[in-house]
Amino acid sequence: MLQYALLHLAGYDSVTMDDLKAFRQWGSRTPGPLGQGFANAVGLALAEKHLAARFNKPDLKIVDHYTYVILGDGCQMEGVSNEASSLAGHWGLGKLIAFYDDNHISIDGSTDIAFTEDVLARYGALGWHTIWVKNGNTGYDDIRAAIKEAKAVKDKPTLIKVTTTIGYGSPNKANTYSVHGSALGTKEVEATKNNLSWRHEPFHVPDEVKRHWSHHIDEGASLEAEWNKKIAEYEKKYHQEAAELKSIISGELPSGWDNSLPKYTPENPADATRNLSQQCLNALAKAIPGFLGGSADLATSNMTLLKMFGDFQKDTPEERNIRFGVREHAMGAISNGIALHSPGLIPYCATFFVFTDYMRAAIRLSALCGSRVIFVMTHDSIGLGEDGPTHQPVEQLFSLRAMPNILMLRPADGNETSGAYKIAVLNRQRPSVLALSRQKLQQLKGTSVEGVAKGGYIVSDNSSGNKPDLILIGTGSELEIVEKAADELRKERKTVRVVSLVCWELFEEQSEKYKESVFPSEVTSRISVEAGVTFGWEKYIGEKGKAIGVDRFGSSAPAWKIYKELGLTVENVIATAKSL
Amino acid sequence: MLQYALLHLAGYDSVTMDDLKAFRQWGSRTPGPLGQGFANAVGLALAEKHLAARFNKPDLKIVDHYTYVILGDGCQMEGVSNEASSLAGHWGLGKLIAFYDDNHISIDGSTDIAFTEDVLARYGALGWHTIWVKNGNTGYDDIRAAIKEAKAVKDKPTLIKVTTTIGYGSPNKANTYSVHGSALGTKEVEATKNNLSWRHEPFHVPDEVKRHWSHHIDEGASLEAEWNKKIAEYEKKYHQEAAELKSIISGELPSGWDNSLPKYTPENPADATRNLSQQCLNALAKAIPGFLGGSADLATSNMTLLKMFGDFQKDTPEERNIRFGVREHAMGAISNGIALHSPGLIPYCATFFVFTDYMRAAIRLSALCGSRVIFVMTHDSIGLGEDGPTHQPVEQLFSLRAMPNILMLRPADGNETSGAYKIAVLNRQRPSVLALSRQKLQQLKGTSVEGVAKGGYIVSDNSSGNKPDLILIGTGSELEIVEKAADELRKERKTVRVVSLVCWELFEEQSEKYKESVFPSEVTSRISVEAGVTFGWEKYIGEKGKAIGVDRFGSSAPAWKIYKELGLTVENVIATAKSL
Repeated sequence: MLQYALLHLAGYDSVTMDDLKAFRQWGSRTPGPLGQGFANAVGLALAEKHLAARFNKPDLKIVDHYTYVILGDGCQMEGVSNEASSLAGHWGLGKLIAFYDDNHISIDGSTDIAFTEDVLARYGALGWHTIWVKNGNTGYDDIRAAIKEAKAVKDKPTLIKVTTTIGYGSPNKANTYSVHGSALGTKEVEATKNNLSWRHEPFHVPDEVKRHWSHHIDEGASLEAEWNKKIAEYEKKYHQEAAELKSIISGELPSGWDNSLPKYTPENPADATRNLSQQCLNALAKAIPGFLGGSADLATSNMTLLKMFGDFQKDTPEERNIRFGVREHAMGAISNGIALHSPGLIPYCATFFVFTDYMRAAIRLSALCGSRVIFVMTHDSIGLGEDGPTHQPVEQLFSLRAMPNILMLRPADGNETSGAYKIAVLNRQRPSVLALSRQKLQQLKGTSVEGVAKGGYIVSDNSSGNKPDLILIGTGSELEIVEKAADELRKERKTVRVVSLVCWELFEEQSEKYKESVFPSEVTSRISVEAGVTFGWEKYIGEKGKAIGVDRFGSSAPAWKIYKELGLTVENVIATAKSL
Repeated sequence: MLQYALLHLAGYDSVTMDDLKAFRQWGSRTPGPLGQGFANAVGLALAEKHLAARFNKPDLKIVDHYTYVILGDGCQMEGVSNEASSLAGHWGLGKLIAFYDDNHISIDGSTDIAFTEDVLARYGALGWHTIWVKNGNTGYDDIRAAIKEAKAVKDKPTLIKVTTTIGYGSPNKANTYSVHGSALGTKEVEATKNNLSWRHEPFHVPDEVKRHWSHHIDEGASLEAEWNKKIAEYEKKYHQEAAELKSIISGELPSGWDNSLPKYTPENPADATRNLSQQCLNALAKAIPGFLGGSADLATSNMTLLKMFGDFQKDTPEERNIRFGVREHAMGAISNGIALHSPGLIPYCATFFVFTDYMRAAIRLSALCGSRVIFVMTHDSIGLGEDGPTHQPVEQLFSLRAMPNILMLRPADGNETSGAYKIAVLNRQRPSVLALSRQKLQQLKGTSVEGVAKGGYIVSDNSSGNKPDLILIGTGSELEIVEKAADELRKERKTVRVVSLVCWELFEEQSEKYKESVFPSEVTSRISVEAGVTFGWEKYIGEKGKAIGVDRFGSSAPAWKIYKELGLTVENVIATAKSL
């Protein structure tokens, strides 16, 4: 709420007094869950440091801003904020200034009951500069001095602990949890206004306050004019850099960017989609100036290194490989921050698919705020083999398909991997999750970039009149199994259609006519094959179909052995087809 | 792997040499994901401290053990370990001793690329005693001294940073990431054995080593005999305490425990299931000695306080209300540790349902290792109202229904809430998630504890011969809407069956005959109503049915307003029924 009030006072038209009055009503703006915003701020500061290093010139500082963030006791307790703080310290994000509102109260009462650590000492250990403002209620000069000091420290982020009284001014409720999530109530509002000598009606902004704040409008306008002058000069002097920067600021993709994505034929060697993904990542990073990202300590397993770039580090912030360490949750939230910094920044982040569980809250925020993050999730099934059930996703595909406003893509080979990346880049208002295999997969004949754009499409078919005897549906690594089973069944004079359902969300967005052309209602013999839980497949196989999948946790063994034990085989697909 | 080898050497029959040889093969034992085991250890140490405080007597220390845990750089980076460490420091878990294997190498190479914080200083700030053993490769005496020092510090947990060389002894691969996840290879194994002057065959344990370790068997046997003597004496002297402790150790529930769960009739006032849940929690804590738990800083919203007990804190560890702070992930993992400590410890833990996303990795581990944790998740839908989409779960029901070996229960009223708790306690080998409403719900006529045990059951019906015109299916807060719609439709001479599908997993475990008696195949007019995504409902409504739900993120507004805007109304159910 506070941030909206400040934006309104500072003259941002987009936040009206009506917005403020509609707080917590239908259609209103709302707050986020704890710890996320702080990690987003680390992403914003990272983006600034990166762009400044790439584009600023000795004579023209074109990217140059601080990132301020306010966090409370609850944010401090969440693990994600420690992860993000450890990275911010490691990266030396000197222009990140965090105000920690130390009011000793959370929803359950005094923080003494669960939070007695020495926060400033922890931040010191994490490589931050720390300052303590002891009187945060009225010590304005101390706060100003702290900001000045923070700005002077250029190689470390700064945490300013500001000790405050929650509900300051309320005679009966200040310093209690009852002001944390509830309104004060009419009587106490009256008492508080008297106590603070505030004589105005609700939502009235006195002229004196308006005058004081309105200078931000002029100030902002003049800063903008100054910057416009600067960028004009920059464009003249540094033509190429200016074009790149403009693409990052506007979000306009360079023409022909998607031509860089590789294409495959069945003659190309079998390969893991995680490797094929690396081809795409490297192609896109070359073609798109704002493309950058990294992995949570699995770069060589996720295959996410950009070969032409070095590591984004404290002293090499112009580089594009981000090393997140084993911090999946912060990785997701920082990536959201990067994406929200500039429309043309396209961050990707990677770990094993099962560890989307560690970062699910950040993925959900990505979907909720429509930020274009590409989640590169390799080792996408029991097919990863030996690492066993703790590392083998089985329910993750469905748990992400159930989430609104996010694309869950599971490509089957090279063409589908290229198609998945094309979709991920084109969807500016929603994130994409790519589930990629550890194991090698054949390049299939009927797969295509265009097919992926439809979410589901016919890969092979020997039927006519839209009436196959059987429809086999596969995704990812199982499409190959399904294709082989289809070939065998066709030898027995069956007409078999194979459908790749690479992205359910995109398929659902197609016309009813198209959907019927892929899944004709009258064809009820359908089998799905996917190395994950079968739950949810009823949607496409119908009441008479059968789903082959993994309705249990996995097992540690070589991949082929697990596939065999769990019936994800050509033989089982054929036997199931015959049982329908 | 290390822990299995040590258990084998120490004489634990349950780990055989064949187990060790079968590492990473079908049916083998496997490792866990980073950070979880450490937080589990905090739970184990909490359980020890709690039980010791409750049951030890000045003359008889019947619960008295240390908890040792080894963690690596990766565990340190994960947010969950910081959350758990902050709590361990706050609780003063003096008998928790953690060895931090500081080998500077993670999968992506040197930890310098992403992890440069001062770990010992951070732990100091978190209230831990810290020790640094600089030569962890061969400094055995230093390690022994560190353990002694750790034991002497009784009011703080201890972190012993042990600096080691990864792959110690390997001439060419020591201190590199290549020994992190991969085998050394035959040649390097040979070179390492030469370097370390180890002349034995693979998997051979020399007699000298066997002798050295075998003393643990005798030592263990004598400690066990001693303890058995002690507990016999304890039983004589402290009859009641001994009975409680034995119930906790054996996991046997006190007879009649479930009689304590409240029952309701439609005359009872409408109430939120989170409030009804609190009745159950308090009844169970009174009836079951090992029942304890708490919330992640939402006790007064989740309604999870046990009224007859105080807070489990550093100086009051005998109490049963655990204050986790805003640390959902650690809360889940610590609860797993508590459950795994003793078969009769039944931990519950609570937050808003949407924040299962913050703790999903811990919930999955709970399911995977079959630990009986009760996840009390309130504010279970858009029905929470004003907090808005970041706090409103829509896809969480399905994302948990998709997970193996866990029960997802969504009770509709008092009887179903009691039924859900009964199921949660009875399922010793799997966790349960209870989704509970913030808003008041009516006590319905046909609901029952027995019905919940079947997962899905008929709540009301005016049809005969198992042939209703229409089946309306609801869960949780929407069962009331469905019941009202049924009443209206029945007035128009329709035969309508209402089914509560409170737990899909339990329903699926019923006989085909029972399932057919609830959902006769020939009745294809079916409507589901649930305040969550409709994805997945195809399973029960079939191809001709309709699902009413929320296929988008929620909104901030009063609950009734959101329900109305999104069509979760009696009127819409009736209109939909007529459209079938």
